[in-house]
Amino acid sequence: MKRYTVIVAGGSGSRMKSKVSKQYLLLAGKPILMHTLSVFYNYDATIDIILVLPAHDQAYWQSLVRQYHFDIPHTLVQGGATRFQSVKNGLSQIKADGIVAIHDGVRPLLAPHTLEQLFTTAQQQGNATACVAMKESLRHVDPQTTVSRAVNRTAYKVIQTPQVFRVPLIQQAFQAEETDLFTDDASVFEYAGHKIVLVNGEYSNIKITTPEDLRIAEALLRKL
Amino acid sequence: MKRYTVIVAGGSGSRMKSKVSKQYLLLAGKPILMHTLSVFYNYDATIDIILVLPAHDQAYWQSLVRQYHFDIPHTLVQGGATRFQSVKNGLSQIKADGIVAIHDGVRPLLAPHTLEQLFTTAQQQGNATACVAMKESLRHVDPQTTVSRAVNRTAYKVIQTPQVFRVPLIQQAFQAEETDLFTDDASVFEYAGHKIVLVNGEYSNIKITTPEDLRIAEALLRKL
Repeated sequence: MKRYTVIVAGGSGSRMKSKVSKQYLLLAGKPILMHTLSVFYNYDATIDIILVLPAHDQAYWQSLVRQYHFDIPHTLVQGGATRFQSVKNGLSQIKADGIVAIHDGVRPLLAPHTLEQLFTTAQQQGNATACVAMKESLRHVDPQTTVSRAVNRTAYKVIQTPQVFRVPLIQQAFQAEETDLFTDDASVFEYAGHKIVLVNGEYSNIKITTPEDLRIAEALLRKL
Repeated sequence: MKRYTVIVAGGSGSRMKSKVSKQYLLLAGKPILMHTLSVFYNYDATIDIILVLPAHDQAYWQSLVRQYHFDIPHTLVQGGATRFQSVKNGLSQIKADGIVAIHDGVRPLLAPHTLEQLFTTAQQQGNATACVAMKESLRHVDPQTTVSRAVNRTAYKVIQTPQVFRVPLIQQAFQAEETDLFTDDASVFEYAGHKIVLVNGEYSNIKITTPEDLRIAEALLRKL
């Protein structure tokens, strides 16, 4: 079945204390986002890569593509006001059936074997979302009283991307009106009535949002 | 008020794919555990450091102390069959009132200002536990049905150590019979009827349990 990926990178650099949005910062000498696109291309050179970027970033991205002689084919799409809108814009580019992996642009360390397992599972079961076990203790904090209580961490999973879906099902799910409940694409899919399938990913598939994360990614990349 | 720390390091090296238990692996040329003890000593040279190690590790630790000319004063105590028993053994060494910080030996990157805030808060409120916000989406998985549902991650905190307590209160709490509910020291304290006070710590205060964690710690240490 035809494979697609929608890679979303709409974040600003505010948490990075940088003027450059985090997805363009250099990791091992190359913008983070180029690493991310490469993971998908190296996994399957026939995959359709749809890259969703804010309108005001697109000229900058094009200049980086020239500067780094980045030749991985991709379709550039304009982002929306929220992540939900950006993903919806990306999904609307897909005109045929298939399987789509929605992925954060700032997760460049995704392992190919995780991606393979996600696509295989989604093909069989309609969806697949990467997750890892909670390694640390967890407490629930009541927002009203601020009283916290220990909860059983083995009953919780930390959710990552890619989140992979059968194309028509996820396109339909994104017809919903956006709500605060939508913290990721799996929650949109769940809201449409589907059961979410979780697949164990890797701790190294980190989301780079702080300067510390960038240093961690450099360290992981050297040894992967 | 007199300050103590009970540092617990009972883990084996199984998750590290190493024959050497993880707490003795080298971080920047020195065993992880020595970094951890140094954080407390550098914060307050008058603190009483109680180090709890498995019986079969103690001769090895003593040889490392000689080899590395490690001269930070500490009391060595024998661990128990579980983490709960080990902490209890450590706490039983304390013969006077004060404040005790219970800490994982494999968290060498604890920041002094976090430690200061924890001791200050515990002195005022009886206890203080380090935590950080969940950065990623979270799902609850029903253990029977394996059905998962999105939960509001802002209502959850990831718990770290140190967990800091007024000495007689935590000693009393550890008189309880051990149960599976005790995932950390705060849960023991909570079980005794106390309200847990959470203090924001730092993401860099990682627990080193895998080879990846060790590489991450090296990267963080270079830039701290």
